[in-house]
Amino acid sequence: MEYTAIKLVKRPEIAITPDLFEVVRLETPPLEDGQFLIKQTHMSLDPAMKGWMMPDRDSYIPPVELGDVMRSGGIGEIVDSKNSGFPIGARVQGLTGWTEYLVSNGQGMNLVPEGIPSEAVLCVLALPGMTAYQGLMNVGKPKAGETIVVSAAAGSVGSMVGQIAKAEGLNVIGTAGTDEKCQWLVDDLGFDAAINYKSESLQAELAAAAPNGVDLYFENTGGVVQHAVFELMNAHGRIMVCGMISDYNTLTPSAGPNWVPIIKKRLTIQGFTMPDHYDKIPGMIQAMSKYLMEGKIKYRAHSLDGLESAIDGINLLFTGGNTGKLMVKL
Amino acid sequence: MEYTAIKLVKRPEIAITPDLFEVVRLETPPLEDGQFLIKQTHMSLDPAMKGWMMPDRDSYIPPVELGDVMRSGGIGEIVDSKNSGFPIGARVQGLTGWTEYLVSNGQGMNLVPEGIPSEAVLCVLALPGMTAYQGLMNVGKPKAGETIVVSAAAGSVGSMVGQIAKAEGLNVIGTAGTDEKCQWLVDDLGFDAAINYKSESLQAELAAAAPNGVDLYFENTGGVVQHAVFELMNAHGRIMVCGMISDYNTLTPSAGPNWVPIIKKRLTIQGFTMPDHYDKIPGMIQAMSKYLMEGKIKYRAHSLDGLESAIDGINLLFTGGNTGKLMVKL
Repeated sequence: MEYTAIKLVKRPEIAITPDLFEVVRLETPPLEDGQFLIKQTHMSLDPAMKGWMMPDRDSYIPPVELGDVMRSGGIGEIVDSKNSGFPIGARVQGLTGWTEYLVSNGQGMNLVPEGIPSEAVLCVLALPGMTAYQGLMNVGKPKAGETIVVSAAAGSVGSMVGQIAKAEGLNVIGTAGTDEKCQWLVDDLGFDAAINYKSESLQAELAAAAPNGVDLYFENTGGVVQHAVFELMNAHGRIMVCGMISDYNTLTPSAGPNWVPIIKKRLTIQGFTMPDHYDKIPGMIQAMSKYLMEGKIKYRAHSLDGLESAIDGINLLFTGGNTGKLMVKL
Repeated sequence: MEYTAIKLVKRPEIAITPDLFEVVRLETPPLEDGQFLIKQTHMSLDPAMKGWMMPDRDSYIPPVELGDVMRSGGIGEIVDSKNSGFPIGARVQGLTGWTEYLVSNGQGMNLVPEGIPSEAVLCVLALPGMTAYQGLMNVGKPKAGETIVVSAAAGSVGSMVGQIAKAEGLNVIGTAGTDEKCQWLVDDLGFDAAINYKSESLQAELAAAAPNGVDLYFENTGGVVQHAVFELMNAHGRIMVCGMISDYNTLTPSAGPNWVPIIKKRLTIQGFTMPDHYDKIPGMIQAMSKYLMEGKIKYRAHSLDGLESAIDGINLLFTGGNTGKLMVKL
């Protein structure tokens, strides 16, 4: 059977451009014992993908090799199987790649529980939700009554962080890049405040929203929000560094804040990435499923149509053009 | 009995200048029950004093009030006493202030064990030694075989950090501001390498001294060393932020490094100050005394003569002019 896949054939200089990719037609191979064939239905697009395209000795997982199908997470349906653990008709979640079909032996693939929509899985129970839970609960160790600021709060990770924090009894302030997103954070997700980071009075608005200062900062962006929140940190504040999306499309890294307040306020600034914490995922899925079933977590999917829409569509993540978790429906 | 003391009468703009102080003659009051009279013999001069002179709502201990005797740690001999716990002839250590004599009721004062020279107490068993131990052992949590860089390594804190780290089996690299200090670190204190941070090839020399990268950075300076070491940090590296002495005499805070490597390398950057950890001091004094008795900790005192020498002398800390722990002998 013929299907379409997209290979990475060139590494980005700064921006992600169509010439980095090659759309190819491939044929599904016959299945061996233990293998099964997945027809991908929902493919996740995430900011981390840009890092995976780069040849970077410092990165926490190896880059995608040139000529390989581009890496991504996703969900699909099993349409043929020689593996009794993965029967035809079941849904699976895992690293699927930019492809309509793929063959798997089950390694790294998980069955999706019945009754949970595929969008909910990608929005809440996949990498972004796990990242949110790990960063907030295990790195930040929040206490009820504390104040947290989340940057890129309308994004796939940030929207989960803010809702978990609300469920845990924190005062939650989000920043986002449009008034519409801010409205959604407050009206639909229950954030206590949301601030458009493009506002000229960002610093004053943040200070007004956090009259008792900021105990926790979940860093997804860098840039102006980083500096504004850093000023407001309380003694013994914790900063969980998850993403620096405002820096991913620049050649010159932006300067960080001076370190004197780290001493005066005894701050802890900690970076984390999920590959160090894969062993905790089953427990975190359980915790997130509980929030989901209690109605404490809402999600919004931003769906593109068809595999090839990923090529231009991924840039929505870097322009802030997506409203909700970006994914491709196939 | 008349004695000399030095009051803080003006706050510094940038530098510490003689007009900030007033030298006064005072008279010792008669002792009440429970009080005793201390004749100070050794007075400590520390970089933190500059912070204590500043009116700063963010600081971890309140500033010295204008008109009060300047704050400092020190050691003295009890010359009169109405407190049986603090007999005449005993030595005590505590916050003495810039004064020849002071009256105490014992609060915050500790008897100095016999047989340990007063210089050793100020160099090893006072605030700098405690700061070194707390930052390295409790914040940094080093493992034998790891590589640590210590900035201001010839200073009162840094020289202790490096020696504790050597005693714990680490590879120890120090930075200092003169070749003489670097020589002392390697030849006398047993550092594996020491680099003059004023060298034009600082980055290359650091990289050569740390062929396996840097696991721990004990930050005393900020500035060029901060940026050079930050580049070399290994995955899961820890940075203990203790001081930023290169920033204490500037009006414009220097920029910190960009935060992207904090994510990629899952770094932890943690500030600490001793007032949060006073409860651990008895245990830390015990640990440091053990190193001292085993000959694993050496020290070097840089002594000035007479109380009034503190006024100009304190600036040696900011020019790097001191060789060893700066103190005043009275």
